[in-house]
Amino acid sequence: MNAKGIPVLEIFGPTIQGEGMVIGQKTMFVRTAGCDYSCSWCDSSFTWDGSAKQDIRWMSAREIEQELDELGTATCSHVTISGGNPALIKQLGELIEVLHVRGIEIALETQGSRWQDWFMDIDELTLSPKPPSSTMITDWTQLDPIVEKLTIGQKKFSLKVVIFDDVDLDYARTVHRRYPHVDLYLQVGNHDVSEINRDVLQQQLMERYVWLIQTVMASTDFKKVRVLPQLHAWIWGNKRGV
Amino acid sequence: MNAKGIPVLEIFGPTIQGEGMVIGQKTMFVRTAGCDYSCSWCDSSFTWDGSAKQDIRWMSAREIEQELDELGTATCSHVTISGGNPALIKQLGELIEVLHVRGIEIALETQGSRWQDWFMDIDELTLSPKPPSSTMITDWTQLDPIVEKLTIGQKKFSLKVVIFDDVDLDYARTVHRRYPHVDLYLQVGNHDVSEINRDVLQQQLMERYVWLIQTVMASTDFKKVRVLPQLHAWIWGNKRGV
Repeated sequence: MNAKGIPVLEIFGPTIQGEGMVIGQKTMFVRTAGCDYSCSWCDSSFTWDGSAKQDIRWMSAREIEQELDELGTATCSHVTISGGNPALIKQLGELIEVLHVRGIEIALETQGSRWQDWFMDIDELTLSPKPPSSTMITDWTQLDPIVEKLTIGQKKFSLKVVIFDDVDLDYARTVHRRYPHVDLYLQVGNHDVSEINRDVLQQQLMERYVWLIQTVMASTDFKKVRVLPQLHAWIWGNKRGV
Repeated sequence: MNAKGIPVLEIFGPTIQGEGMVIGQKTMFVRTAGCDYSCSWCDSSFTWDGSAKQDIRWMSAREIEQELDELGTATCSHVTISGGNPALIKQLGELIEVLHVRGIEIALETQGSRWQDWFMDIDELTLSPKPPSSTMITDWTQLDPIVEKLTIGQKKFSLKVVIFDDVDLDYARTVHRRYPHVDLYLQVGNHDVSEINRDVLQQQLMERYVWLIQTVMASTDFKKVRVLPQLHAWIWGNKRGV
């Protein structure tokens, strides 16, 4: 146990990144524990609801590097850090440095509720502010300066909004209007993160994807946008660790 | 009829780009007629096999712009030029200019068998050299200088290889070794471009995608690569014009 360690819940891969700006990317995942949000539909609620508390490992950057080596740095030079909200963890900066020295690229996703200086070192940063269906409230006074710093720093980053319904789409409009210069990704929400029948889930998700495409195609508010599903949910259903 | 016009077979959208480096992008498609290749599994063989010869419209850049306006420039500021091989058409340069003046971004896909100076004006250029299953032979003396010019010009471009089998994967290895600095996309081949049952096709394509993922994940030759399906084929099957 190390007070300055990184709280880790999962390290797995290589597999593909199923969503967002690097969809399809061969990558390994490091999933951190802890979140300042509690989205109603979170597909990784074990990272914050206490149910996996006993599985948290407090690891040093070197220990994580070693586990990634065992998993597949010989076959994969890309790592995705996810959560929870990894932006809560200042000491991730050391992991990012260690991996970069090894020539490994790093993607990271966060809701944009908190800044970390190491954001500037992430190769592909996804900010995913949460729409009303999540029951979370966006703190624009946090998100605005994050977007501004990344823009000024000419970083490769994007905004991603999960869409469950028309109210979420309205929220995405607000985001797009506020940050029109930032690449926007709209992602189909997974209504049923507990469905265990993959085929049933697949059909549901595909129908919702078609709905989202049709709605966005007709809209004058989204003239340049990317609309994507979660490929991993289509292929593997709600399984963890793939 | 205009000898200097652009031979067009389809203009449609807005819809999503189903594949490659801008997968998910809201876009309108302009499909040109004519190809120097005749890939065994081409999903748009009507562009070169003579079957749609009577449908070719020789259009000026302004006429294409007007048709795109009628379709949806009010809702969409991205156009994808596809073929056939659009790189056969020198006069596309004028269309690219006309659209850029309007603030419309342009993606284009070509196999990389022929250079055009307007390549340097494409916002997202995909070079998709064809693997052995296509029965085509790559002319590296053409592809090498194309990759070199785009690299020196610091253009946003990628390589995409369609994969049907292990022999195709070997070819992709060769491509990746030859151009290690260029983003590489591996795409699941569609074995049955005449299957009309969408659900049957969907299952086939998904199985092939899982095979491709598993094979690539285990490979030390593809340390940084993106592996993608064709989303439009999953959703709409082999339908044209969507």
